[in-house]
Amino acid sequence: MAANGHKVRIAILGASGYTGAELIRLLAHHPRAEIVALTAERSAGKPIAAVFPHLAGRKLPDLVKNDEVDWSGVDLVFCALPHGTTQEVIAALPGHLRIVDLSADFRLHDVGTYAEWYGHAHRAPELQKEAVYGITELARPAVGNARLVANPGCYPTSAQLPLVPVVKAGLIDADDIIIDAKSGVTGAGREAKQGSLYAEVAEGIHAYGVASHRHAPEIEQGLSEAAGRKILVNFTPHLMPMNRGILSTIYVRLANGATVADLRATLERAYADEPFVRVLPEGGLPATRHVRGSNHCLIGLAKDRMSGRAILVSAIDNLVKGASGQAVQNMNVMMGVEETAGLGQEPLFP
Amino acid sequence: MAANGHKVRIAILGASGYTGAELIRLLAHHPRAEIVALTAERSAGKPIAAVFPHLAGRKLPDLVKNDEVDWSGVDLVFCALPHGTTQEVIAALPGHLRIVDLSADFRLHDVGTYAEWYGHAHRAPELQKEAVYGITELARPAVGNARLVANPGCYPTSAQLPLVPVVKAGLIDADDIIIDAKSGVTGAGREAKQGSLYAEVAEGIHAYGVASHRHAPEIEQGLSEAAGRKILVNFTPHLMPMNRGILSTIYVRLANGATVADLRATLERAYADEPFVRVLPEGGLPATRHVRGSNHCLIGLAKDRMSGRAILVSAIDNLVKGASGQAVQNMNVMMGVEETAGLGQEPLFP
Amino acid sequence: MAANGHKVRIAILGASGYTGAELIRLLAHHPRAEIVALTAERSAGKPIAAVFPHLAGRKLPDLVKNDEVDWSGVDLVFCALPHGTTQEVIAALPGHLRIVDLSADFRLHDVGTYAEWYGHAHRAPELQKEAVYGITELARPAVGNARLVANPGCYPTSAQLPLVPVVKAGLIDADDIIIDAKSGVTGAGREAKQGSLYAEVAEGIHAYGVASHRHAPEIEQGLSEAAGRKILVNFTPHLMPMNRGILSTIYVRLANGATVADLRATLERAYADEPFVRVLPEGGLPATRHVRGSNHCLIGLAKDRMSGRAILVSAIDNLVKGASGQAVQNMNVMMGVEETAGLGQEPLFP
Amino acid sequence: MAANGHKVRIAILGASGYTGAELIRLLAHHPRAEIVALTAERSAGKPIAAVFPHLAGRKLPDLVKNDEVDWSGVDLVFCALPHGTTQEVIAALPGHLRIVDLSADFRLHDVGTYAEWYGHAHRAPELQKEAVYGITELARPAVGNARLVANPGCYPTSAQLPLVPVVKAGLIDADDIIIDAKSGVTGAGREAKQGSLYAEVAEGIHAYGVASHRHAPEIEQGLSEAAGRKILVNFTPHLMPMNRGILSTIYVRLANGATVADLRATLERAYADEPFVRVLPEGGLPATRHVRGSNHCLIGLAKDRMSGRAILVSAIDNLVKGASGQAVQNMNVMMGVEETAGLGQEPLFP
Repeated sequence: MAANGHKVRIAILGASGYTGAELIRLLAHHPRAEIVALTAERSAGKPIAAVFPHLAGRKLPDLVKNDEVDWSGVDLVFCALPHGTTQEVIAALPGHLRIVDLSADFRLHDVGTYAEWYGHAHRAPELQKEAVYGITELARPAVGNARLVANPGCYPTSAQLPLVPVVKAGLIDADDIIIDAKSGVTGAGREAKQGSLYAEVAEGIHAYGVASHRHAPEIEQGLSEAAGRKILVNFTPHLMPMNRGILSTIYVRLANGATVADLRATLERAYADEPFVRVLPEGGLPATRHVRGSNHCLIGLAKDRMSGRAILVSAIDNLVKGASGQAVQNMNVMMGVEETAGLGQEPLFP
Repeated sequence: MAANGHKVRIAILGASGYTGAELIRLLAHHPRAEIVALTAERSAGKPIAAVFPHLAGRKLPDLVKNDEVDWSGVDLVFCALPHGTTQEVIAALPGHLRIVDLSADFRLHDVGTYAEWYGHAHRAPELQKEAVYGITELARPAVGNARLVANPGCYPTSAQLPLVPVVKAGLIDADDIIIDAKSGVTGAGREAKQGSLYAEVAEGIHAYGVASHRHAPEIEQGLSEAAGRKILVNFTPHLMPMNRGILSTIYVRLANGATVADLRATLERAYADEPFVRVLPEGGLPATRHVRGSNHCLIGLAKDRMSGRAILVSAIDNLVKGASGQAVQNMNVMMGVEETAGLGQEPLFP
Repeated sequence: MAANGHKVRIAILGASGYTGAELIRLLAHHPRAEIVALTAERSAGKPIAAVFPHLAGRKLPDLVKNDEVDWSGVDLVFCALPHGTTQEVIAALPGHLRIVDLSADFRLHDVGTYAEWYGHAHRAPELQKEAVYGITELARPAVGNARLVANPGCYPTSAQLPLVPVVKAGLIDADDIIIDAKSGVTGAGREAKQGSLYAEVAEGIHAYGVASHRHAPEIEQGLSEAAGRKILVNFTPHLMPMNRGILSTIYVRLANGATVADLRATLERAYADEPFVRVLPEGGLPATRHVRGSNHCLIGLAKDRMSGRAILVSAIDNLVKGASGQAVQNMNVMMGVEETAGLGQEPLFP
Repeated sequence: MAANGHKVRIAILGASGYTGAELIRLLAHHPRAEIVALTAERSAGKPIAAVFPHLAGRKLPDLVKNDEVDWSGVDLVFCALPHGTTQEVIAALPGHLRIVDLSADFRLHDVGTYAEWYGHAHRAPELQKEAVYGITELARPAVGNARLVANPGCYPTSAQLPLVPVVKAGLIDADDIIIDAKSGVTGAGREAKQGSLYAEVAEGIHAYGVASHRHAPEIEQGLSEAAGRKILVNFTPHLMPMNRGILSTIYVRLANGATVADLRATLERAYADEPFVRVLPEGGLPATRHVRGSNHCLIGLAKDRMSGRAILVSAIDNLVKGASGQAVQNMNVMMGVEETAGLGQEPLFP
């Protein structure tokens, strides 16, 4: 176990997707982690290089089926399986395992809300009760004690990091929040879908899932907790031609006499000691290309010309802080490892 | 002159930029137009193919300096010169010329507002008085009678087409309009700037000019006229990796008991007979790739989950309906030519 | 029929793919063609806008199944079905129909070669005998008389247009031809395949099908005919991040004392009166972006530093001159219509 | 000094370009290096984040002018200045400094060849004599002893790594080598040039510098040394829409009865113990996206259908193994540091 100096023995379930590959990249030089199992049902028996040629030559276990893993040699599981299939898989895992689940299956506290948005009853409602929703910066103590961490969605991470502190402080009107988010294509996964083809994405942009995207209730859950009451938000995602990155442009109405300077001060205080979240100085606005490949979240603020309004902009790499990076960060907190371990990658620009 | 069957003799000033090339493309098969002069100060003396190799082999006049043009053989001028240099150039043109100006120099009716946003006094205030701001669908009769049409900006076209009819009808709160716009790179012109380099744009997105972009007062001018009082809007442009296209996602608050269905009905009525503006059926959302290369504007509407709010989304090609296409459309109206002449290009997808 | 002034009544089989959409775009303003049927087996019953939203609002027939078409009202069929399924479909069509087949099914004269490269015996060997391989510029008279034209592949078009005249003239060593080709993604079609996903194509390039691509025997067939003996070539295709375009960089050894000037003169002579093929002046090299959306083929030539060698570079839009544009061009020749009809689109740059 | 355990104190001259930023990224976590000075003439006085916002928040010295550096506190200089300006700068540096020059200024051994290709006499011909041309794997001992290493060009690295061993072994005809190379845009630097604009590069490809690119003599120098006699090659570079990466597809004629298997065996032997060069197994072909952000070079081989010929394909990241990564690798060898230090970055895919 990590706490007494051994390496954390890791299994990655669903290693043939983009978040799986990203976990492998991040853990490659993690000083306190060792990958002992990689699963992929359809590619079981093959080396990882058969699905990810860029990983050829690394010392990594071959892909196996989930039921071939010897769990006794595993300390922590990253579960990167598709939404909907994960609840039963995790419920069947041995109790000694710590788990970071990158799917949406345990993110919504309320199983009724889950059923409403995902179209079927929750398949592990008991387990849901102990799951900790883990935006690391906002839930560190609970993550540290959790057996099962529900790793947040990419859009919700990009929205909650700038919003939660200012909602909590009562600086904005929680009933008038508009989140216009722009995402890279890897957010849609590696499955072959017509909508993700190069020729359907390149050189264009469109909104999708307007008022119906499943990340909306996840965002609302976090903001409702911060506001102390149930709130709804406008969340409008857009698909655009880039591999990685989410930019969320957030339009808010100031409340209780607050100014943009107050928002800035609150966010700077909230993230002053955080290694991965940076509030840009006045005049600064984030760009996704400045976080590519890193676990960073950049936040910029601007005054609106319309009086009493402000604009918050956040940028993350959807595969890192929006998925696998935050998952490793959560693992580090869970296992008592230095929180930045394995996450030192600088942004790759350009 | 066009009205009695001759071809309109055209001069394009500033033919070496992207809007210049686009005018040439659109006029190439225009049945009632003939390009008789192309100017470019620094490239004067060269064939157009020297600056635009894709135009090699066409029958086009060589580039000349502005003062080398024989204006007596010209009926109409497209002025595609940089902002700020155009007022004096146009003021010096002979009075018989009809003019469509693609710069921002004559777009703001109020020369005080112009001075405030452009940093210098207007250089042709008398001429400003007769300039007609020409979103064709919204100003057709005035355009028809105009000697000088100020061709609208790309962002303002994408914002005003969906907004003006619903503001005019009082269906939305004109004091709570948020326009989140995403533009392709050609909007920045062909000048060599670090910020427009491939490596500074590809695979990323960022907001810019927040609360300070010069298209804001232009949008507000049009919406204020529609509202019958001075209003301000939030306008937040973003630069994204595509050659062409603007998607404007517009967040509005419904007013006077209006519903999204009312907005839709009003827009459908407003554009029922328009050849270039199409309101998508319920559930439809526009994508910029569906208008690429065409003079089309697509408009979609969606209900927000937040009660009393709605989302309007518009898509145009910034170089066509957002610039050169609308310029040709205005020319057609000015010269009594079939309005769709030269504008039959279907979208190029993918 | 076209010859006596009526419009050619067109059916497009397989209208839900990229070449189908491109045929519709090109025929939209064709003065002598009228689309009377569009087929798509899986989407039958839907409007074309259900699969191609950018075509909404046009007057087009709904999609039907192949066996629902009333062939008596059709003059000419464009067959844009997948390779391998086409032979039987075409063999079953009524005899009065003229056919342009965009698949590979009738391109190889020798059914033995077909079987070797496509893995199964030819299913319409009798029909193969009458099929005319139609690079229009190189086979105009035969195309004019053909009932069935095999529309050439995109790569073979880009390779044969520059090579056939110089091979025929004996100016290069036909046994030392290296064709390094770079293609946009639409060449792989609209089927959902992992290898065509945005994230698997963007920001990268790779060679594929080295020494095994099915367009190799097609290229060799044309060059062998030109050389008067059986030859083999090196053909190495690459997949790169662009929607449209093929650039073929061709390395040749000069023969019989020929110079690059001789090659140029021969190509200029061959294409002097051709509306779609242009040999660039000395120093000029083609770019795919200069032909995007048009039926043009640009050819450039350069001297190598290695004595006795030369470089030919050609650029086409793979969906236009490499597929649907050439198909319309062939239709025009077959039906006695002006060859450029419907093909006046200027390149869309940028 | 590194050898006795201290950190190597580094100055980066020309830190405001892409290779400068990349050096900073790679050195950020280098266990034995410390950046003590960053120069940029035009941005002197500013923090590095003013030119590279993605580097904000790191502990890095502010930018200074070259003549403000205290050289006594520096052990090694990375010189990332533009070609042509570097010879005099380096000649003026104190003698105790070790230098890795990323420009082309010291790459050509023969100052006559330099003058011919760069258009002016060499400005530091004495210094040229001691400069070591440093493709690390091919010149390790000399690099270790060098005071001044000329870091190779990106194209030459991608060409020489696969070619030098097989030329040296006499397995191919050194007079029949064709190198068709495809490069990302960062190879052109960060200077604002029209040809590097997004809209001039995206969605297209073209060849440039055919038979006249300055990397040709650099490649020929290395291959001539391997062949033991003066040879010329065909080198044809192409510019394509990607930030990073070079793919070189190399066409060769086998000699002395050699087979592709012999080439493979020779390359495998040459690079068996190399941490950064990997020969792919039979059937494998490299993709630039599989090396993005890493110091890796992948090499694949294929048999041609034309008998007696073979195809070699190499992939590197032009900013890493093609520039800054190889520079750090050379530094490590020069300073007696573990050669892989600071170069552990896994490829960023996608």
